[in-house]
Amino acid sequence: MYSFLCDYSEGAHPQILDALFRTNLEQADGYGLDRHCRNAASLIKNKIGREDVDVHFLVGGTQTNFTAISAFLRAHEAVITAQTGHINVHETGAVEATGHKVLTEATADGKLSPKEIQSALDYHEDEHMVKPKLVYISNSTEIGSIYLKSELIQLSEFCRKNNLILYMDGARLGSALASNENDLTLSDIAELVDAFYIGGTKNGALMGEALVICKEELKEDFRYHIKQKGGLLAKGWLLGIQFEELFRDNLYFELAHHANQMAAILSKSIRDLGNPFLVHSPSNQIFPILANGIIRKLEEEYSFYPWKKIDEDHTAIRLVTSWASEESDIRQFVDKLNHYHHIL
Amino acid sequence: MYSFLCDYSEGAHPQILDALFRTNLEQADGYGLDRHCRNAASLIKNKIGREDVDVHFLVGGTQTNFTAISAFLRAHEAVITAQTGHINVHETGAVEATGHKVLTEATADGKLSPKEIQSALDYHEDEHMVKPKLVYISNSTEIGSIYLKSELIQLSEFCRKNNLILYMDGARLGSALASNENDLTLSDIAELVDAFYIGGTKNGALMGEALVICKEELKEDFRYHIKQKGGLLAKGWLLGIQFEELFRDNLYFELAHHANQMAAILSKSIRDLGNPFLVHSPSNQIFPILANGIIRKLEEEYSFYPWKKIDEDHTAIRLVTSWASEESDIRQFVDKLNHYHHIL
Amino acid sequence: MYSFLCDYSEGAHPQILDALFRTNLEQADGYGLDRHCRNAASLIKNKIGREDVDVHFLVGGTQTNFTAISAFLRAHEAVITAQTGHINVHETGAVEATGHKVLTEATADGKLSPKEIQSALDYHEDEHMVKPKLVYISNSTEIGSIYLKSELIQLSEFCRKNNLILYMDGARLGSALASNENDLTLSDIAELVDAFYIGGTKNGALMGEALVICKEELKEDFRYHIKQKGGLLAKGWLLGIQFEELFRDNLYFELAHHANQMAAILSKSIRDLGNPFLVHSPSNQIFPILANGIIRKLEEEYSFYPWKKIDEDHTAIRLVTSWASEESDIRQFVDKLNHYHHIL
Amino acid sequence: MYSFLCDYSEGAHPQILDALFRTNLEQADGYGLDRHCRNAASLIKNKIGREDVDVHFLVGGTQTNFTAISAFLRAHEAVITAQTGHINVHETGAVEATGHKVLTEATADGKLSPKEIQSALDYHEDEHMVKPKLVYISNSTEIGSIYLKSELIQLSEFCRKNNLILYMDGARLGSALASNENDLTLSDIAELVDAFYIGGTKNGALMGEALVICKEELKEDFRYHIKQKGGLLAKGWLLGIQFEELFRDNLYFELAHHANQMAAILSKSIRDLGNPFLVHSPSNQIFPILANGIIRKLEEEYSFYPWKKIDEDHTAIRLVTSWASEESDIRQFVDKLNHYHHIL
Repeated sequence: MYSFLCDYSEGAHPQILDALFRTNLEQADGYGLDRHCRNAASLIKNKIGREDVDVHFLVGGTQTNFTAISAFLRAHEAVITAQTGHINVHETGAVEATGHKVLTEATADGKLSPKEIQSALDYHEDEHMVKPKLVYISNSTEIGSIYLKSELIQLSEFCRKNNLILYMDGARLGSALASNENDLTLSDIAELVDAFYIGGTKNGALMGEALVICKEELKEDFRYHIKQKGGLLAKGWLLGIQFEELFRDNLYFELAHHANQMAAILSKSIRDLGNPFLVHSPSNQIFPILANGIIRKLEEEYSFYPWKKIDEDHTAIRLVTSWASEESDIRQFVDKLNHYHHIL
Repeated sequence: MYSFLCDYSEGAHPQILDALFRTNLEQADGYGLDRHCRNAASLIKNKIGREDVDVHFLVGGTQTNFTAISAFLRAHEAVITAQTGHINVHETGAVEATGHKVLTEATADGKLSPKEIQSALDYHEDEHMVKPKLVYISNSTEIGSIYLKSELIQLSEFCRKNNLILYMDGARLGSALASNENDLTLSDIAELVDAFYIGGTKNGALMGEALVICKEELKEDFRYHIKQKGGLLAKGWLLGIQFEELFRDNLYFELAHHANQMAAILSKSIRDLGNPFLVHSPSNQIFPILANGIIRKLEEEYSFYPWKKIDEDHTAIRLVTSWASEESDIRQFVDKLNHYHHIL
Repeated sequence: MYSFLCDYSEGAHPQILDALFRTNLEQADGYGLDRHCRNAASLIKNKIGREDVDVHFLVGGTQTNFTAISAFLRAHEAVITAQTGHINVHETGAVEATGHKVLTEATADGKLSPKEIQSALDYHEDEHMVKPKLVYISNSTEIGSIYLKSELIQLSEFCRKNNLILYMDGARLGSALASNENDLTLSDIAELVDAFYIGGTKNGALMGEALVICKEELKEDFRYHIKQKGGLLAKGWLLGIQFEELFRDNLYFELAHHANQMAAILSKSIRDLGNPFLVHSPSNQIFPILANGIIRKLEEEYSFYPWKKIDEDHTAIRLVTSWASEESDIRQFVDKLNHYHHIL
Repeated sequence: MYSFLCDYSEGAHPQILDALFRTNLEQADGYGLDRHCRNAASLIKNKIGREDVDVHFLVGGTQTNFTAISAFLRAHEAVITAQTGHINVHETGAVEATGHKVLTEATADGKLSPKEIQSALDYHEDEHMVKPKLVYISNSTEIGSIYLKSELIQLSEFCRKNNLILYMDGARLGSALASNENDLTLSDIAELVDAFYIGGTKNGALMGEALVICKEELKEDFRYHIKQKGGLLAKGWLLGIQFEELFRDNLYFELAHHANQMAAILSKSIRDLGNPFLVHSPSNQIFPILANGIIRKLEEEYSFYPWKKIDEDHTAIRLVTSWASEESDIRQFVDKLNHYHHIL
């Protein structure tokens, strides 16, 4: 059974494992105060092209999201997200568990624009309602779409004008930035949002997310929040070492590029067979709509998530590729799909 | 300027004030452990026809809702409510501030049925999502509709089958039970829901809500939660005395009946003039759709909330009547409305 | 059975009840946005001698404490209090329920000084521990002592130097300010602390506390927090009306003065009989140490709390007087105590 | 500079790293639902000798503590701990951040007995105070002491009689169980406590703690809480693989035994030189009291924490050994200490 369930089905890229192996018996200071974390932060700042950001390493995405959001907000302030946002759907109410309401807006493609945010602002008029304060976006989104530079500029200007914090969940930021439709750089993002994270778990690390805080007012005492929320890894250098490998040269982007390419092979083949897609996705998650009979055959050898029932006979499924996907496995899937298309 | 803004624009029914006056210098035990609270609880149990419920007196509705919900739920459990539910819209995220996600379902009339609840259950499939556990309904609802006995039976059976707690916000329970369309009794409600409150603030008391916990497993240590959440009034007997007056005889229902009658006069007159309504409401809140020109004239002498823009020329407004509404004031409003209809 | 249990055993001062009676059928805006609340705030500002403070009316003390503290602090920040502090002992963990640790320091007399606060600061050295940020004091304290002006100046200077918020719980502020040992004014307090409240519940009101926020940075959006935490009374004018009566002239101070005088009569008599006290108290709570045999006799006709076992034969008890204590009742208690002293 | 700061200054035992290396490109299900986690749980159950416990793998100790405690308690319930307890001192208020008060009792040796717990129970008498419900103990404790079987039996019986949950923080459980003074087994512990965790981070793993829930009522829906609190590692098998290595044979105990032996060499040498200890410690943390002059010399080549000032000339320091401590390094430290003793 080959898995297209997600982009975290394997361990780490070998170069990362080697680095962990190599440094294993070095003594290091705990809790991220070691030279590897310092160096990894420095490498990330170099890629961003700015020294005046704070970089923190946390273990996972849900942890990073609720730690940041609860550190940034006062008790009466709320988050605005697309209905599909990970914090709304798949984090077991982690943000609410820190006390903050999550306000949702329907979107066609998983992306927020000033229009939806304005709608949330208009609706919340006084102290009988929460005060919308932080805009949560994901790039790439939970359904594979990405933000263009022009869109992010619009969002950023809108948020600044309205005194809103703009936060980007970058669990799949690698895939977004390595997309052939992308026109954003890390530097652009750091300029346009107030905080974001660079996801490691879904792009070749064993685990680890690098949170970048750009806005001065959000930086103070952040390490207290990491500790209080359980994210201050004792052997913090494990995260530093991994991000050193990912950002010393271009490994982070190369891995994401590979994942996207594998998804593109899948997309093209599926499209060539005449199948439509639920949503346009230029990243490493694709959502083709297939006949149920074909899906049943594929499920004999492949695991993937059914995503949405389209009609009695068709279902959108999710296929995710990763840095570890082998092209031969992808080709084999395509061949089988072709085969089922001809015989069914 | 006469106000139709809400049903808590005046103080208390004179009989209640008299009782407070009469007992003012009696020494009493604090925090609701006095004879008035005991007696009021006893009167309520009599009206319900059951001894095996717990009755607690709290100061206000938001306080009662989040105190009960946070006492009843574990950290990962969530609430299901209609989108229009007071806890979702007008409590400044009070439930989320205690850590629980509020899941919303769209409804036409502010009422939940098994269909919407099943939809929420179906969507939440595993531990990556919150676990829906408590169903929050309001009776009468935030838009004036009421639950029929058959509807509440269906809800109750559904919740019991699915191991869900059924909680009724009774901020306007008086108005619901005194409605000429109502077929529920306090006794029915206590049998069908797991906890509910009988609203005093909006039906003639200075303040105060009587929370009735019917389900045995929800009763334990509830007073700790009232205290922790700030609802344990030092001079708790103030609440007991008020509910003694409301429930010694039938004052509670008489006041609600009066409020409904006043609303019925308004409704009939407005309908007779050919105006439609946003929603069918047999209680003390009505939502007529009027021409904007007429609304502007009315606003010169009356205060009320615009509720929803219908088209360029029409708006639904909310008119609320109360135990304290004088029929002469109501008649005067009707006369003016008639007048504007003829001249505009 | 006559009660010395607390200073909230009776209703309201008759002048307050009269005002409620008089205004009962006036229509008013809800949630404290009415003319009575505005006027009461204005009267309090006049007494303070400053316009640049915000005044909010809440229902009770626990509610006021946790609402203010959770509004003022970020998630990692903690409160420093004397071990005897009400928030530490008698609020069912209300502050912790909003997420903040309460750090305690032992004191002889219930009062904090820079020494204890410095000790807490010294202990908390990095992000593995909470960050002490708000100093909670009570005046009068939970054991009847009061802060002198020189002490409050020291505290204030220390807190400002160390970037700490100084918050005063004034549940019994009347009794403190009316003490014959007091040298503080409301104006001094507003200058020296960042926020404090003027307790009504324990000084003649049915209920109600007036929170005064002096520090500019703590004012923003405070009403959202009152609403979220359940403290925004629908008929908010009930609080405004009561504080209008208390602060139009000097009723607030006269009531507190009376309570203190009644306690002074008790103290003098008890001392004259040779009984020691647990702590020096110049306010309306006293803690005499009596022989257990005498206590048992007194308990036949009086209710009061045993406070602390001193030795096998003696116990400190708490006697509380109030605005409603009649001098004849006090004299009768003294007579009985004298009697028991002679016969036992 | 050689570090005695802690037992998590190095990576993982080589056998663990090898296992991670070996399995790196296997595809596995996420979030701990893989065969390695199942197998590791099974191995742990075997060591315990019971099938009817639940085993969950989390990333770190603070995370495990607050996730378990907040899952087990209702909002008004509190934790009792020794003042020295990790949750009280070094977790940045993580437990309070989930809403629960942490009640502390002073102890001589970091261990709780029924006496201290009874004292906490006696003090908390009604709903104005939190309800003590969970007893938190650490084994070994934060100051190196361990619980004997007779002590744990007493605690267990007391807790069951008083309906209290007994929870053991086992961040250093290996060191406790491998102590030459220990008479407890994993099986004893599972029988006597309601939940405990087996610490991996401080005993040879890269990271990871195995939480064992023994009491039936505490098991339900626990994975929801892990996810909500940020502890559900995407690549959960990383934890499973490490615990497979630690518990397939006896590696876990061998590593702890080594750490203890290294500490014993230090202790004996220090004692032989006539230095006293702050506390008796038969585990891998020791707290010798040394002359400040000697400490200053040691600090030139070794890092360790000063723990407590004893007098003007002496300070207790903390020395921690680990599975990775080399005997040659230990001997060298001893030699230097001897040397400084002779020349100073």
